[in-house]
Amino acid sequence: MTDCPEDGACNMTPMDLYENVTSQGEKVRTLKTEKASKADIDTAVRLLLKLKVDYKQVTGQDYKAGCPPSENALLPDSGSGAVADGDDMVDPWNVSTTSAKGVDYDKLIVRFGSSKIDQELVDRIERVSGKKPHRFLRRGIFFSHRDMHQVLDAYEKNKGFYLYTGRGPSSEAMHVGHLIPFIFTKWLQDTFDIPLVIQLTDDEKYLWKDLSLEDCHRYAVENAKDIIACGFDVNKTFIFSDLDYMGASPDFYRNVVKIQKHVTFNQVKGIFGFGDSDCIGKIAFPAIQAAPSFSNSFPQIFKGRKDVQCLIPCAIDQDPYFRMTRDVAPRIGYPKPALLHSTFFPALQGAQTKMSASDANSSIFLTDTPKQIKNKVNKHAFSGGKDTIEEHRKSGGNPDVDVSFMYLTFFLEDDEQLEKIRQDYASGALLTGELKKTLIETLQPMITAHQERRKQVTEETVQEFMTPRPLHFNF
Amino acid sequence: MTDCPEDGACNMTPMDLYENVTSQGEKVRTLKTEKASKADIDTAVRLLLKLKVDYKQVTGQDYKAGCPPSENALLPDSGSGAVADGDDMVDPWNVSTTSAKGVDYDKLIVRFGSSKIDQELVDRIERVSGKKPHRFLRRGIFFSHRDMHQVLDAYEKNKGFYLYTGRGPSSEAMHVGHLIPFIFTKWLQDTFDIPLVIQLTDDEKYLWKDLSLEDCHRYAVENAKDIIACGFDVNKTFIFSDLDYMGASPDFYRNVVKIQKHVTFNQVKGIFGFGDSDCIGKIAFPAIQAAPSFSNSFPQIFKGRKDVQCLIPCAIDQDPYFRMTRDVAPRIGYPKPALLHSTFFPALQGAQTKMSASDANSSIFLTDTPKQIKNKVNKHAFSGGKDTIEEHRKSGGNPDVDVSFMYLTFFLEDDEQLEKIRQDYASGALLTGELKKTLIETLQPMITAHQERRKQVTEETVQEFMTPRPLHFNF
Repeated sequence: MTDCPEDGACNMTPMDLYENVTSQGEKVRTLKTEKASKADIDTAVRLLLKLKVDYKQVTGQDYKAGCPPSENALLPDSGSGAVADGDDMVDPWNVSTTSAKGVDYDKLIVRFGSSKIDQELVDRIERVSGKKPHRFLRRGIFFSHRDMHQVLDAYEKNKGFYLYTGRGPSSEAMHVGHLIPFIFTKWLQDTFDIPLVIQLTDDEKYLWKDLSLEDCHRYAVENAKDIIACGFDVNKTFIFSDLDYMGASPDFYRNVVKIQKHVTFNQVKGIFGFGDSDCIGKIAFPAIQAAPSFSNSFPQIFKGRKDVQCLIPCAIDQDPYFRMTRDVAPRIGYPKPALLHSTFFPALQGAQTKMSASDANSSIFLTDTPKQIKNKVNKHAFSGGKDTIEEHRKSGGNPDVDVSFMYLTFFLEDDEQLEKIRQDYASGALLTGELKKTLIETLQPMITAHQERRKQVTEETVQEFMTPRPLHFNF
Repeated sequence: MTDCPEDGACNMTPMDLYENVTSQGEKVRTLKTEKASKADIDTAVRLLLKLKVDYKQVTGQDYKAGCPPSENALLPDSGSGAVADGDDMVDPWNVSTTSAKGVDYDKLIVRFGSSKIDQELVDRIERVSGKKPHRFLRRGIFFSHRDMHQVLDAYEKNKGFYLYTGRGPSSEAMHVGHLIPFIFTKWLQDTFDIPLVIQLTDDEKYLWKDLSLEDCHRYAVENAKDIIACGFDVNKTFIFSDLDYMGASPDFYRNVVKIQKHVTFNQVKGIFGFGDSDCIGKIAFPAIQAAPSFSNSFPQIFKGRKDVQCLIPCAIDQDPYFRMTRDVAPRIGYPKPALLHSTFFPALQGAQTKMSASDANSSIFLTDTPKQIKNKVNKHAFSGGKDTIEEHRKSGGNPDVDVSFMYLTFFLEDDEQLEKIRQDYASGALLTGELKKTLIETLQPMITAHQERRKQVTEETVQEFMTPRPLHFNF
């Protein structure tokens, strides 16, 4: 990856930089037309050249008059496909950072070319929906978006939209971090009263992992139970396994083929870092994750309509799939999906990595007992406190790197209580043990309630959610 | 492509060459063990090195002890993917030769590593089936095979097998050349009383051509009517469009994903010549043509059995798909499909190219009227006759380059009559006009009968053939 140019160009969007070059180019032309002094023209030309260099450094593309930067402008054109910023690495299969505070999300927004979810947008969501914004919005956990204003514009005009999210079922075990997109998606479904499709990419897991097709499919069905336990409305929600639905919907396959025709190996190499020794299944897979972004992939739901706007809540690491999707959409006559991006859920050991379903101590699992939750938090949750109580009382803890505090920002609903905890912890009034106790008391009933709801999920319920069928909605 | 090594190594199969290196290696070891003279050892080592060079030149692979050449050994490891031999080019999308006699099929057998259909195999087919071999077998039109003896072994033990063939529907227009695999497949179905699946790769045509999905699918259905008109038994034949069946059979998709996991981009690059700027649909497609080779892709027919042997009659240019399939099969626990390969059907203008559905004068179309047939043969069929009648009478014509004679070898059933025509034409007793007249009189009733049978094919009949359902067979 290129380094950040000087003059804060890194904080500008590719479009800002593009416009800077364009207007400076016009200035040079004007100076020449007006026969200005050679010194003035030279100065203006030097600035123009510098702006072009900045543009190339940030976008990786040469400036071309009349060609604004594409959404893929920020993607590396070869190599790993991951977006690395300083020590942050983010792609659909790897997320890592060396900072205890986690990934620098503001930089990620610039690099990915998405937009920040600012207070204005949060306020607008509140105004349009008439509901208090979800804590994930209030606290910047969903921090980035693409075209969310457009979704709200349409909604205000009584045009509907639908939600699409998903999960790669690589094991039966799901942890609390896996719930983030589903908790938020359920809130969106309830708030806007709209249909939802949930893709379980069991085919992807088969292609990427050393697992059998049968196991991947079984994990999909098991994960569906945890997803259903989040409280989705069966009348508005279709959950599907790729291994089932791909072979059950000619319309879905037609969209997959359409997408596959309009994406080259060069493109997926640049976006995902695929290489020549990758299997052809991986290379073709992005089209399968893209297809649910188009409403006519679900004729049973949308009756063949291809113009229903899609909104995708997902973790930011999935964005490469949808940058690709948004690039293809207009070329095959479909609307671009809009996106809401979340931050990553930190591992108990610290924000340097995503949680791992294969390390039982890296996270709180949905199957953990109250005792296990207590032990894991007390034993493994990385603390921002000081080494001794005396020192802590004196100079206070650091909530920005404290995993227990981070978890509370995800799960403690009360804003005032959370703010008080933050202040008390930072001042030293609240000790690490007390902070952890609050987290334990927040997680235990939450997980127990989840487990009870999951127990209610019968095979018939799963079957119902996973059967292609019409859904209820009013647009 | 590498050049042909000296000493006729080009006429040896990769396995022969492999065994030569292996036995020479043993010889060297023996000489060393027996402490033979340095001169003897040096001579043996020089020959060993030369044999290794020959092996590499022919197979493109380094010799490795204990690793016999793979079936892909003969494929170029980069570049066009086509197999070019002298001036012959053969891959699934291009066939060309500069010889008026057509492609050199004996060389193709060596390069592809397949086996010649010799008289012994033709005799065995007659013995096992109890029927006179089809004229395509008697005349070397089906000239190459893989594992046909194994199919017959199994058949003799009352184990069944099934047939798989197909067509890429790039237009509504089919010409007589397109019928070759279907005429022969029908004979095989009748002779061995076995089930048959016919794949219409409308997805492939969409990916490769500038056509809409809808047109490709429509061509598939139209082509199905011509295929049905060949007389297939509806109780034993399943015809499917990929665009339909891929989205109608989870088991088919599961096999596609299994194959896609076991083939790398490097492999399809080597086999098919795909490049980085090809779309990901093309790159993944070979798995879709491979999947029907495995019986559990059709659970409605084979009730989940994955061990039913598949036999694929096809033109030799489709072999790359099935070399890939045979390479993958054992790694995913399936039997390798066997193959019967046909020569190419020559264009009216000569054997240098395959016929083209886009050039109306390049071939006899299934929609041609008797008058059109007469005019095309008289006007466009390349003649091996002499310039003047006198000269022709004196020194005779050349049936080997005469397209009318070639067509008769495809369609005139009577061996004796064909042989007499060949002799009379070569001697000059038969004039070009007379030869053409025989061809016209052979094609006209054949095409008219086809058109009449096609008229009988209703939408309901097509629907029936194209519905996934059980088929009748006795194994």
